[in-house]
Amino acid sequence: MTTHEFTPDHYHVTMGSHDPVLRIADGDTVVTTTVDARGRDSNDELVTEPGNPQTGPFYVEGAEPGDALAVRFDRITPNRRRGFTGALIAERILEPAFVRTLPPKREVNWDVDVEKQSVTLTDPESKIHGYTVPMVPMLGCFGVAPPRGQAISTATSYVNGGNMDYRGHVEGVTVYFPVATPGALFHLGDGHAVQGDGEIVGTGVEISMDVQFTAWVVKNSNIVWPRTEDDDYLMAFGNARPLDEALQYATTELLRWLDADYGLDTESASIMLGQTIEYEIANVFDPAYTVVAKLKKSWLDQIS
Amino acid sequence: MTTHEFTPDHYHVTMGSHDPVLRIADGDTVVTTTVDARGRDSNDELVTEPGNPQTGPFYVEGAEPGDALAVRFDRITPNRRRGFTGALIAERILEPAFVRTLPPKREVNWDVDVEKQSVTLTDPESKIHGYTVPMVPMLGCFGVAPPRGQAISTATSYVNGGNMDYRGHVEGVTVYFPVATPGALFHLGDGHAVQGDGEIVGTGVEISMDVQFTAWVVKNSNIVWPRTEDDDYLMAFGNARPLDEALQYATTELLRWLDADYGLDTESASIMLGQTIEYEIANVFDPAYTVVAKLKKSWLDQIS
Amino acid sequence: MTTHEFTPDHYHVTMGSHDPVLRIADGDTVVTTTVDARGRDSNDELVTEPGNPQTGPFYVEGAEPGDALAVRFDRITPNRRRGFTGALIAERILEPAFVRTLPPKREVNWDVDVEKQSVTLTDPESKIHGYTVPMVPMLGCFGVAPPRGQAISTATSYVNGGNMDYRGHVEGVTVYFPVATPGALFHLGDGHAVQGDGEIVGTGVEISMDVQFTAWVVKNSNIVWPRTEDDDYLMAFGNARPLDEALQYATTELLRWLDADYGLDTESASIMLGQTIEYEIANVFDPAYTVVAKLKKSWLDQIS
Amino acid sequence: MTTHEFTPDHYHVTMGSHDPVLRIADGDTVVTTTVDARGRDSNDELVTEPGNPQTGPFYVEGAEPGDALAVRFDRITPNRRRGFTGALIAERILEPAFVRTLPPKREVNWDVDVEKQSVTLTDPESKIHGYTVPMVPMLGCFGVAPPRGQAISTATSYVNGGNMDYRGHVEGVTVYFPVATPGALFHLGDGHAVQGDGEIVGTGVEISMDVQFTAWVVKNSNIVWPRTEDDDYLMAFGNARPLDEALQYATTELLRWLDADYGLDTESASIMLGQTIEYEIANVFDPAYTVVAKLKKSWLDQIS
Repeated sequence: MTTHEFTPDHYHVTMGSHDPVLRIADGDTVVTTTVDARGRDSNDELVTEPGNPQTGPFYVEGAEPGDALAVRFDRITPNRRRGFTGALIAERILEPAFVRTLPPKREVNWDVDVEKQSVTLTDPESKIHGYTVPMVPMLGCFGVAPPRGQAISTATSYVNGGNMDYRGHVEGVTVYFPVATPGALFHLGDGHAVQGDGEIVGTGVEISMDVQFTAWVVKNSNIVWPRTEDDDYLMAFGNARPLDEALQYATTELLRWLDADYGLDTESASIMLGQTIEYEIANVFDPAYTVVAKLKKSWLDQIS
Repeated sequence: MTTHEFTPDHYHVTMGSHDPVLRIADGDTVVTTTVDARGRDSNDELVTEPGNPQTGPFYVEGAEPGDALAVRFDRITPNRRRGFTGALIAERILEPAFVRTLPPKREVNWDVDVEKQSVTLTDPESKIHGYTVPMVPMLGCFGVAPPRGQAISTATSYVNGGNMDYRGHVEGVTVYFPVATPGALFHLGDGHAVQGDGEIVGTGVEISMDVQFTAWVVKNSNIVWPRTEDDDYLMAFGNARPLDEALQYATTELLRWLDADYGLDTESASIMLGQTIEYEIANVFDPAYTVVAKLKKSWLDQIS
Repeated sequence: MTTHEFTPDHYHVTMGSHDPVLRIADGDTVVTTTVDARGRDSNDELVTEPGNPQTGPFYVEGAEPGDALAVRFDRITPNRRRGFTGALIAERILEPAFVRTLPPKREVNWDVDVEKQSVTLTDPESKIHGYTVPMVPMLGCFGVAPPRGQAISTATSYVNGGNMDYRGHVEGVTVYFPVATPGALFHLGDGHAVQGDGEIVGTGVEISMDVQFTAWVVKNSNIVWPRTEDDDYLMAFGNARPLDEALQYATTELLRWLDADYGLDTESASIMLGQTIEYEIANVFDPAYTVVAKLKKSWLDQIS
Repeated sequence: MTTHEFTPDHYHVTMGSHDPVLRIADGDTVVTTTVDARGRDSNDELVTEPGNPQTGPFYVEGAEPGDALAVRFDRITPNRRRGFTGALIAERILEPAFVRTLPPKREVNWDVDVEKQSVTLTDPESKIHGYTVPMVPMLGCFGVAPPRGQAISTATSYVNGGNMDYRGHVEGVTVYFPVATPGALFHLGDGHAVQGDGEIVGTGVEISMDVQFTAWVVKNSNIVWPRTEDDDYLMAFGNARPLDEALQYATTELLRWLDADYGLDTESASIMLGQTIEYEIANVFDPAYTVVAKLKKSWLDQIS
């Protein structure tokens, strides 16, 4: 396995079948960087147009349609101090009549201290100036080229991944994507120093990142939606509107996973999931909303 | 404060302005029982018609429209061994085309062992016969009389509570309801020995319960939707279709709570919640779905 | 058949199993009046509390659960001059961010001229003062007692009918309701001198009415949702949120109708409806939205 | 103005910034053909991959971002006899539990007789073999390049148009699109000899077409969603899930139209639309659903 160092010199605001920036072998590791959602880099300099610009795509040799691409995030670390967030819950997340009471929209800055692992509001105008939360770095937007030669905005998400804005996509997790085109074409960007459920102010603490990832091919996996795994959980994703439909996709994908990898038929899986499943709402801000259907792996210990 | 022992002799399958079974003072405690969702009691005998039959209603003196009724669940304990669940994820929770592949519906029994705090599938026909999960008893359906003289089926939920089927409604939590009628008229039932998120098989482990609760009045609270509190969390509820709308109600109710009780204006609350809010999907089976907007109380420690 | 003249002296703001105001025989006709949505009568005097107060309920002898109650509206005529409407499209019907731009809410009056069959805006403050549309009188809210002893607010709608606010419910149509309780218990109210699709300003031109209707029982009909028929169309209703789900109910009810009354199996009906069905959006303002699935009866002429 | 005859030799299954097949001047006319949804031409021969393959794109000189492209369909005529449709209402359009009762999916053929203007089911296996409806030819999928360099599947629709599957898109209408890229890049395809509301069997009567259209540029129009106009109606489109959101887009776009072109402020437009607006459900089958908000032009006659 090789480790590649890659310094991006251009970015994409769609996920599509763009020319690869690097070809890597099955199992290789890449050390690279991502700019923030507005196109600013580690020096807080504007280097590309805004809208979740993506580093990549990376061509992974051997990946073919019908396979899954697995990507493990080995490291996700903010590489500058200034982050920023929205300062108001988005209109679509509030009761329609309550929207009339909202003050004007603005953005606020946060100081991201990697050493102290903390994120602090630095907005003297705000009544909670100095408010501090622990740092939990994650990537909001990443994925592979979508099917049918499409190029889809990094504002939204789909079967290929995209702007799922899930706070659980932190260092250490492995994400599986359905491969739609040879080489899979992995893109990544949109780092958050921390984020709440739902990305309800339209942002996490947006920031540029140092990222290391390792990618490999799972042949003939035939997954339909992205899946994420860590030491403790299986997680299946659905990206759609309304949330009800995103939840249908996520739940059905988890059933397919339990069938294919654990031999559980629909009834057995239903009996188990009925009392054990967990759902998370990843984002309710982007054009497609994202629901995560999760199962603690320990619930599978009793299945031979 | 008085503790009342109350043995029900009839039940209701709507929440409404029914004749109270007992009048209690502000702050009193009631020790009583609930039958299971199908109307079976601690002897597994059918004593009333099915459909989440409710014990009560209890009239709490001093409760008036504009107040909140607070109810703390002091004890929720299964009072028999047999529980039952659905054996298939409901059609509405799966991709529409996947529904064509489903086997027939049926129900399965579980053995609820209060001493061992465990719940075990007892269905020799099932491939996972003997599957065991820890017991986490909760109530699925409870609430006060709804506004405007309505009587609303205990199959669904609304501003007054009802069939929210939230796995977090366990022993020790306090729930607040908007009072719509003098005495509030508190109803309770639909115990589950355990339940997963979403109540996706249409049931938790349905069982009859011994319940103790304490009720008191919070004057002039003007809450709109149910709120729940435990040692660690504030939780606001929205009950509606689609989930997107339930989430709007829950999020807006949490904003109202933070404003009224913690003096946080919409912008300050938004900045904080954007990075700290948690959502749970309580149920996606009942006619109204339920979303919970949660905030860890410790996030409020920095607010003077 | 008997014709009854009935003058209401009280009204209901829920549909439920209230004491009947009159018992009529299968096939009888009733001549009565309805107050406007705010409780004002033909003299524009407030005679009851607001919220679509209902005249009735009328007990129809012979109606039993499992039957349908048929009601033909023989006459719906405004009985005063002043109507009123909202002056702004409701927040929930507009893009969430657009809601921030809305001016304050208010109501405007219209002059309803039954002789000229016209409805004219009489609001000197408005830029379109004097704007005139033809009169097309209809009833927004009517129905039978819902199942399970419920009493449901006349703000919303359900399987029993209710506040469907469909502009097509004019003089001459016949509506069928699933009977849930002996006598069916028919309620009616909420007249509009005219209304657009969707009831998007939250009202039609609200007004009190003279109404004549004829009611009869269809034994063992087993309909699930309200159905309406006129000379030209079959119309099936679904009342739910989101519209997608209302449309599912309406479409499935139309399939059941074509099966039961025209012997069309699902495939044949699908082939025909695929190229001939029409949908209308009745209301998108009330808690439950209403979709109408319509089929021109002439499309059935080719079916032997 | 020039009339161009254009014979396509390749097609696209995304709408995007593809190389133009022809550059035309502002006001020019094009006479061309479209293949059916599965890629079959006037000889019923497979000439390209399935999925609403598009003829074009056509580059219209002078069209710039911020402008609207206007396209009038001068002629839409089936150019072969065989059409086909689905034979079952799609699962997502039916009550979830009803889906369990569905027979297997299949397709059926129809004979399209342009001379007689009729469309006849030719499926001896079907119980309604020979069923005939009048021909009303329309195009289901057409539009311009979407913003941000995207390439979006012709299975779905968006701000740029796409697979809206609206039965009202017949000969004689003019459609306006927001221009996102120089030349606008107009694509067209997916002809239907006839279609019902909602495209509920997943198809109209799919067929190849002879099409003539005329295109011109409306400078600085700043429209957001597609708009269609004929002699009688203004029609604004929203493409999204759920229908509730598509309706929000369509309604708000109609408000913008009335403001920009007729000087109607939000309140005046609301008062008028409240009693006059009409909605149509164009499709509930594609990934994005389509709602049309319509206003009869005659309602504007009273506005000076």
